[in-house]
Amino acid sequence: MDIYHIDVLKEGYSYLSEDKQSLVANGTSTLVKSPGVNVLVDTLSAWDSHILIEGLKRNGLTCDKINYVVCTHGHSDHIGNLNLFQRATQIVGMSISSGDVYQIHPFEKGIPYQIANNLEVIPTPGHTLSDVSVMVKSTHLGTVVIAGDLFEREEDIKDPSLWKEIAGSENPKLQLQSREHILDIADYIIPGHGPMFKVTHELKETHSTIVKAELGAISKS
Amino acid sequence: MDIYHIDVLKEGYSYLSEDKQSLVANGTSTLVKSPGVNVLVDTLSAWDSHILIEGLKRNGLTCDKINYVVCTHGHSDHIGNLNLFQRATQIVGMSISSGDVYQIHPFEKGIPYQIANNLEVIPTPGHTLSDVSVMVKSTHLGTVVIAGDLFEREEDIKDPSLWKEIAGSENPKLQLQSREHILDIADYIIPGHGPMFKVTHELKETHSTIVKAELGAISKS
Repeated sequence: MDIYHIDVLKEGYSYLSEDKQSLVANGTSTLVKSPGVNVLVDTLSAWDSHILIEGLKRNGLTCDKINYVVCTHGHSDHIGNLNLFQRATQIVGMSISSGDVYQIHPFEKGIPYQIANNLEVIPTPGHTLSDVSVMVKSTHLGTVVIAGDLFEREEDIKDPSLWKEIAGSENPKLQLQSREHILDIADYIIPGHGPMFKVTHELKETHSTIVKAELGAISKS
Repeated sequence: MDIYHIDVLKEGYSYLSEDKQSLVANGTSTLVKSPGVNVLVDTLSAWDSHILIEGLKRNGLTCDKINYVVCTHGHSDHIGNLNLFQRATQIVGMSISSGDVYQIHPFEKGIPYQIANNLEVIPTPGHTLSDVSVMVKSTHLGTVVIAGDLFEREEDIKDPSLWKEIAGSENPKLQLQSREHILDIADYIIPGHGPMFKVTHELKETHSTIVKAELGAISKS
């Protein structure tokens, strides 16, 4: 069985500027490394190629050794450096391409795309309608889900305004469902704009309470 | 008054492969050039940096002379080379950034973002919920709208399956409204996957007939 090594090359962040006229933010970029396949999840903004190159070097890799690049969605802090990875199959949101050839895959029916054993790209719409996450089952932490902006950061489980209003959600009801699914299957979650966190029993309980309140608020709105 | 020169650096295309198992496609990339400001609209796929660099060279420009990059939406055939333009303000769908600073602009309320006189980024949701188009008013062709995948190509006015099913639409009703708006204001349209076309009276009539049929079909579905 493959054992995947996960290294967060850059931890994302987001906060309002002091004058509240702008948002200061960058995404998380994560490497999934194994003897059989290397996957880079999210490529940061256009100004960050050096972070990726140095992060890969730290892991004994170059851009050409990346077999798959997955961008969890098409926002600019996740897709800025795709051209570094021309030997990779590129999965951007729910589209899969290499050169000008696009594979047709039914993500919209909820069907995952299997990259390798215990390594899948799963549809998790909500933040945008075509968000995906990467599920890595066989790691020393158990199942790790690299979730992009489905989760802004751990704190947004207690405070849904962080993912609904600050980060923005194209479909909050779908996003709640996708969040629930990931909390069910993950031991650890790597969110789009904060450090990795452990999925505790307490966190799941808090989420369940929030879901009921949120669905009530959505159905009334 | 500024006169803008428009050059299509690469004309987009899209078609089903012979075995119908994949789609072969690339986007359109367009340069808007003037003495005051240079704008590149859409950056093709990750494998196409040479096309952009050579196209700019043909126009006496380098990547560093681009002041704004606009990606009409976050699909992989439009956002593959953002890191070539690190001196530009980058507008990807409805987000505007430079480094890790994101300007807050109310595109979602229908409000355009003015780059310069007679040169605006306007919200045109439908293909994705955060698609934008670039409207250039002062050109030798009149008003040209660079519309990304709001229009797949001219033929999709007669055959809506081209933009609704082949290209895909996150919200067909919104897309019909955005298409109507652009057909009202444009003399010429540069679509995402085909050559520039003139907006004739006949084309508008055809569109009006289609809108009635489509809205009927959507309200019944």
